[in-house]
Amino acid sequence: MGYNVRLSVTCPDAKGLIAAVSSFISMHDGNILSADQYVNRESGRFLMRLEIEGEGFGLEREEFGAAFAPLARRHGMEWRVSFTDTPKKMAILVSRYDHCLIDLLWRWDAGELDAEIPLVVSNHPDLAGRVEAYGIPFFHLPVSRESRAEQEAQVLDLLSDHGVDFVVLARYMQILSPKFVSAYPDRILNIHHSFLPAFVGADPYRRAHDRGVKTIGATAHYVTEDLDAGPIVHQDVAHVTHRDTVDDLVRLGREVERRVLARSVRWHLEDRVLVDGHRTVVFE
Amino acid sequence: MGYNVRLSVTCPDAKGLIAAVSSFISMHDGNILSADQYVNRESGRFLMRLEIEGEGFGLEREEFGAAFAPLARRHGMEWRVSFTDTPKKMAILVSRYDHCLIDLLWRWDAGELDAEIPLVVSNHPDLAGRVEAYGIPFFHLPVSRESRAEQEAQVLDLLSDHGVDFVVLARYMQILSPKFVSAYPDRILNIHHSFLPAFVGADPYRRAHDRGVKTIGATAHYVTEDLDAGPIVHQDVAHVTHRDTVDDLVRLGREVERRVLARSVRWHLEDRVLVDGHRTVVFE
Amino acid sequence: MGYNVRLSVTCPDAKGLIAAVSSFISMHDGNILSADQYVNRESGRFLMRLEIEGEGFGLEREEFGAAFAPLARRHGMEWRVSFTDTPKKMAILVSRYDHCLIDLLWRWDAGELDAEIPLVVSNHPDLAGRVEAYGIPFFHLPVSRESRAEQEAQVLDLLSDHGVDFVVLARYMQILSPKFVSAYPDRILNIHHSFLPAFVGADPYRRAHDRGVKTIGATAHYVTEDLDAGPIVHQDVAHVTHRDTVDDLVRLGREVERRVLARSVRWHLEDRVLVDGHRTVVFE
Amino acid sequence: MGYNVRLSVTCPDAKGLIAAVSSFISMHDGNILSADQYVNRESGRFLMRLEIEGEGFGLEREEFGAAFAPLARRHGMEWRVSFTDTPKKMAILVSRYDHCLIDLLWRWDAGELDAEIPLVVSNHPDLAGRVEAYGIPFFHLPVSRESRAEQEAQVLDLLSDHGVDFVVLARYMQILSPKFVSAYPDRILNIHHSFLPAFVGADPYRRAHDRGVKTIGATAHYVTEDLDAGPIVHQDVAHVTHRDTVDDLVRLGREVERRVLARSVRWHLEDRVLVDGHRTVVFE
Repeated sequence: MGYNVRLSVTCPDAKGLIAAVSSFISMHDGNILSADQYVNRESGRFLMRLEIEGEGFGLEREEFGAAFAPLARRHGMEWRVSFTDTPKKMAILVSRYDHCLIDLLWRWDAGELDAEIPLVVSNHPDLAGRVEAYGIPFFHLPVSRESRAEQEAQVLDLLSDHGVDFVVLARYMQILSPKFVSAYPDRILNIHHSFLPAFVGADPYRRAHDRGVKTIGATAHYVTEDLDAGPIVHQDVAHVTHRDTVDDLVRLGREVERRVLARSVRWHLEDRVLVDGHRTVVFE
Repeated sequence: MGYNVRLSVTCPDAKGLIAAVSSFISMHDGNILSADQYVNRESGRFLMRLEIEGEGFGLEREEFGAAFAPLARRHGMEWRVSFTDTPKKMAILVSRYDHCLIDLLWRWDAGELDAEIPLVVSNHPDLAGRVEAYGIPFFHLPVSRESRAEQEAQVLDLLSDHGVDFVVLARYMQILSPKFVSAYPDRILNIHHSFLPAFVGADPYRRAHDRGVKTIGATAHYVTEDLDAGPIVHQDVAHVTHRDTVDDLVRLGREVERRVLARSVRWHLEDRVLVDGHRTVVFE
Repeated sequence: MGYNVRLSVTCPDAKGLIAAVSSFISMHDGNILSADQYVNRESGRFLMRLEIEGEGFGLEREEFGAAFAPLARRHGMEWRVSFTDTPKKMAILVSRYDHCLIDLLWRWDAGELDAEIPLVVSNHPDLAGRVEAYGIPFFHLPVSRESRAEQEAQVLDLLSDHGVDFVVLARYMQILSPKFVSAYPDRILNIHHSFLPAFVGADPYRRAHDRGVKTIGATAHYVTEDLDAGPIVHQDVAHVTHRDTVDDLVRLGREVERRVLARSVRWHLEDRVLVDGHRTVVFE
Repeated sequence: MGYNVRLSVTCPDAKGLIAAVSSFISMHDGNILSADQYVNRESGRFLMRLEIEGEGFGLEREEFGAAFAPLARRHGMEWRVSFTDTPKKMAILVSRYDHCLIDLLWRWDAGELDAEIPLVVSNHPDLAGRVEAYGIPFFHLPVSRESRAEQEAQVLDLLSDHGVDFVVLARYMQILSPKFVSAYPDRILNIHHSFLPAFVGADPYRRAHDRGVKTIGATAHYVTEDLDAGPIVHQDVAHVTHRDTVDDLVRLGREVERRVLARSVRWHLEDRVLVDGHRTVVFE
């Protein structure tokens, strides 16, 4: 079966980096299907993403690391490699709102999202049926103020047991502790229902309505310890008018939320998002 | 020459308001060309805009007020009438950035904006040539921290002398005093270079870049004493990527700013914007 | 239980129409919640939509017709009344593509679409499970070139038996006969996967890709005898790049299709769409 | 003064192309500032764009060709090099509509467009003042049915005399002959006032209005012998409603036209557009 190799590289900028990496691939008979790079002039960081055809590539997947390591070391590279026939294991955390969840499940089922979904976890039981209809295990872990630390530990255990490497918060209405966040650095994606940094925090549609905005939005971002301040992956908006009530904003917002989240999830699954300080580089 | 009558009405909501107003028009043989209304259920306010053909209308313009007053009184209406052959007198205040100014002048010259522009005022001399090329008087009134109150008084005098009834801040980089603002309530339109309430205050593009947003925007709003918090008339956005520098955001933002401002100015000139508390109703 | 009355009116333009209709409502103690009107100057047609609070309105629903008829006759009005507690009966016709169907069902379930869905009909059996999960009867009526007339007759019978008053073609890959179309004039809504009139006919994404467009779109329109030429209700687009393959266009297009269709269905269900010749007036 | 070198390459796809080109640059101590590449799988073409820092690069500009030629020959490359301190010479052809012209001139003056504009040519005298206000020579070459060939020859002579390498048709209402087109292959950019392929030919706004579309658009494309069928560089749209008259469509369309044209001109000037058969690859 055919597969591609995806290589992401970040390092201090220097002359000859593209030549070094592409020559390495070429030397091993690799066919580069796509290459993207970006230099952040402010930070002096170089970021690159390559997709290489697996067929004909001279390095077996288990050999790649050892072969690439010396080059990486010389240039101070942080790097990551993935293989398209080994899809990421993506967990979805959800509460009661189902629109983002349903949309992700439909897209996954339609083949838009190249992932395994070993489980969905929720602090409410409501969406079990929806999830199980897709043959995906659903775990209900209720949470109260007192049980928060304990519930989080259970969630982390579940994720670990299922080998999860990417967590999507599809309107999960709980704030994650620093401990949780640090277990999945740059690998927890949240959808916030406003165009950040406007309306940080709770109830953004109500506040957008009160402010009388003519545009509402949604923001997908990686979760960091700092609430709603993580690196933004994608944003989009919808126009609204004075006729739109808070309920209308919620309805129109759902559409933006699911679109923004789905696109971001897809990019993450395809290793298109590189974190660059507190910003992201998205190689669309 | 043909003209239309534009009537805007705001009052407490009640049954029969549309019937009362439209029957009044009908009784005087008026042909209603367009009618828009909106009821704000939260505040219980009724807002309406009518456009009536002048030809055949039984009320001369100087008669209208006396004829309409009893009806208005009965329903507690605030109302405003204007005539399309008497365009508003619009002043433009500007500093050094010329993109919004040039765009407004071009549109005005092309017939998109139905206004007289008796003057442009600036605290810098740079744009005199641009303005005078359109045959519009340009006044340079420099301002320093010390002279602010005095300069504002001069500007107010100029506006008053020229019979101005609408002021556009086309990237005018001065904060207006409450006294100035209260001289033109809901009749000073500002363009802010962010999608408010994100990035209130100075240097929004720099801050947007630092935050790593994927969308920038612009907001046209009426000026109130509360900086950047006045009723929003229109907003729009542009998508940006990690490749866009602060300079790129400025460039892309200019396009959004001028589009948002121009559309808002046009709506204001056509009496399409009614202020409803700290929000606006826009009858597009 | 509270309900609203929706009245749509079309007639030759004349003075006093708004006054006549709103006074009629007022005379019967009706509270007008929203009023929209439009005059087509080219055709001289007047179009109006009113929403009236049922509570306190002096006309029972069975009385409305007789009471309104004389006024309607005097002005040559075509008119239509509906009651918000009697949702329309909407049938969905579908083939194999499920994205529009699923989206409509989800929105319906979420309360976004105020309709009954007595049945879904398909010429393929594939989507039975999806539909029945929502508790909606699914009818599989296969069709071949030879059986087309017969199958259509069966579909029409089913629709009639279920009292359907609105038909949505959610990517139904069959051309309807004039007979079918004439059974539901301006009440069959189709989603075409291009921004009409570009790419009329089959395989628009393939042709869009071949042409190298940078924008793809979708169009919701009422079905007339003239394929892809019926009155357009809504259109929207998505930007694409040279990197997007035909499959990518299909994927991105699905998102536009379902958004455009859902919004159009909602407008139809709320009686916001009036047909005006071969164009539509949409009172959003 | 600093400058960058821009290299564009097109050739049959093969393994090792990125390594070959980037190693060539690296060997000559070049610092690659940005690199983009694309492989068209259908045609098997490889397309690449590099931007290299001039400072420190070991190849003088007059040496580049000779040094790169052997590599190019080996891989069957078509290639093009440009230097950012030698801006392109861009001629603008215009008739009577001024919106695209004015916008381009304003952007050029604001530093958004890195070009020399040695002349503007028009078949009407109207816009001479506008152009000359920017210090740019304006040539009026009227044309009639009989004089078309002769006028075209004059235009070509003018362009040639001024060393023009890029021609922008900013609503130039004349059809260019194949001879003219072949003098500037893929270097004549036209703005068409519809989202092609909808409304090919004359009077698209009128036809859009008649069709009742809800979206209008504009298309920038390179001119080929085949009218309105050249490779598309960029497209964008605006939403319209039933209230918009043909004049409104024209007004709203002007905004889209100038935005689409300006962006396309900028991309061309920065060598970001590569023609790939009858499509374009745009390295934004």
